Amino acid sequence: MEIIKKEMLYEGKAKQIFATNDENLVIIHYKDDATAFNGVKKSQINNKGILNNKITAILFEQLEKQGVKTHFKEKLNDREQLCEKLTIFPLEVITRNIIAGSMAKRVGIKEGTKPKNIIFEICYKNDEYGDPLINDHHAIALGLATYDELKEIYTITAKINRLLKDMFDKEGITLVDFKIEFGKNNRGEILLADEITPDTCRLWDKETGEKLDKDRFRRNLGNVEEAYIEILKRLGE
Amino acid sequence: MEIIKKEMLYEGKAKQIFATNDENLVIIHYKDDATAFNGVKKSQINNKGILNNKITAILFEQLEKQGVKTHFKEKLNDREQLCEKLTIFPLEVITRNIIAGSMAKRVGIKEGTKPKNIIFEICYKNDEYGDPLINDHHAIALGLATYDELKEIYTITAKINRLLKDMFDKEGITLVDFKIEFGKNNRGEILLADEITPDTCRLWDKETGEKLDKDRFRRNLGNVEEAYIEILKRLGE
Repeated sequence: MEIIKKEMLYEGKAKQIFATNDENLVIIHYKDDATAFNGVKKSQINNKGILNNKITAILFEQLEKQGVKTHFKEKLNDREQLCEKLTIFPLEVITRNIIAGSMAKRVGIKEGTKPKNIIFEICYKNDEYGDPLINDHHAIALGLATYDELKEIYTITAKINRLLKDMFDKEGITLVDFKIEFGKNNRGEILLADEITPDTCRLWDKETGEKLDKDRFRRNLGNVEEAYIEILKRLGE
Repeated sequence: MEIIKKEMLYEGKAKQIFATNDENLVIIHYKDDATAFNGVKKSQINNKGILNNKITAILFEQLEKQGVKTHFKEKLNDREQLCEKLTIFPLEVITRNIIAGSMAKRVGIKEGTKPKNIIFEICYKNDEYGDPLINDHHAIALGLATYDELKEIYTITAKINRLLKDMFDKEGITLVDFKIEFGKNNRGEILLADEITPDTCRLWDKETGEKLDKDRFRRNLGNVEEAYIEILKRLGE
């Protein structure tokens, strides 16, 4: 069956999601729009949509090969990929190998500190409340997931962290932290959804410490597009 | 050995802690000082120290009788109690049976909502950072406790919640939420520390819904001392 793009189902800050003629498939379109600080800072990063579509395709294919179930089916064109339609958990699942960003500020740990444990966090995806940090009990009370679903999400996330850390490490990049999202398909399986890109990861050059991620945009460091190009180049395009 | 009060070891917002001639014992002095919103609002509540010293003594004795280990030894006078000296975990351990206060605001749930699960939270006791909500992984990274210690703390906290809920329920009071602290004695045992009072609990009259706790002070509802007196009266003095 040929896939035909239909109406837009949802528009987020960086992506649009379109229905298709197959009720179990959606087309995800990657935009150049960039936002930070819960939408307070807004701009565009040239070609970001094209770069992030490619980077996500490479990483999700690699993860699939290593046993992680994802929503990704295939890259359709420069800005679009075909994905399984999921019901998304309204959770941002964050993994921190090194302390940076909001956690550094929140508890007063110097950015760059390596904790002895890996830190997993969940935030409630809700713009009105600024995507607040929550814990498992809050998620249950809010009806966002069950305790069993959270347990499975943490197990998959820990595996994804191990795999991604290796993939980036081989390319001379430290995976500092990253945010992922999960959803459930119509068979009740929990799959990795959304994207994995310099928008959603902190990626530091292993040698120089140079930031190769969206912090260049958030912190006005310049060479934003170049950083995304560098990540894509190292990942093998 | 007669206990002799020695130098002040620590002064908090509501209490002072004094050394004694026994290195394993301290005297805790309850003040009338009341603060809210991380110290931004400051005042005094008449006789609060006397009332809270009595209320904590009653509740800690009841908890001890039902198998909860606490730092409490005996009430010495109106404002002072003798307690085991502990190394305090810099954690506020919060239990919520009903959503109110910071959690209601944080995630946009109406105050008074009863979740299907009991919510446990930990905050990092750190005035500079506003006692931020953290999760277990943050606590480990900050070196505040071990995963095993947290597990034990949650188990004890769940038991304390069951016992306190019953104690208050019998007196016509709904235990909405409460904050407790834990410490370790010199034998490595984890004990309940600090206080349990209308300063650290939300207590609503079961019939009228009237607030009988520090929210009367935080929210300028008047009759603050009267609420504390009412709690003490119902608990049996």
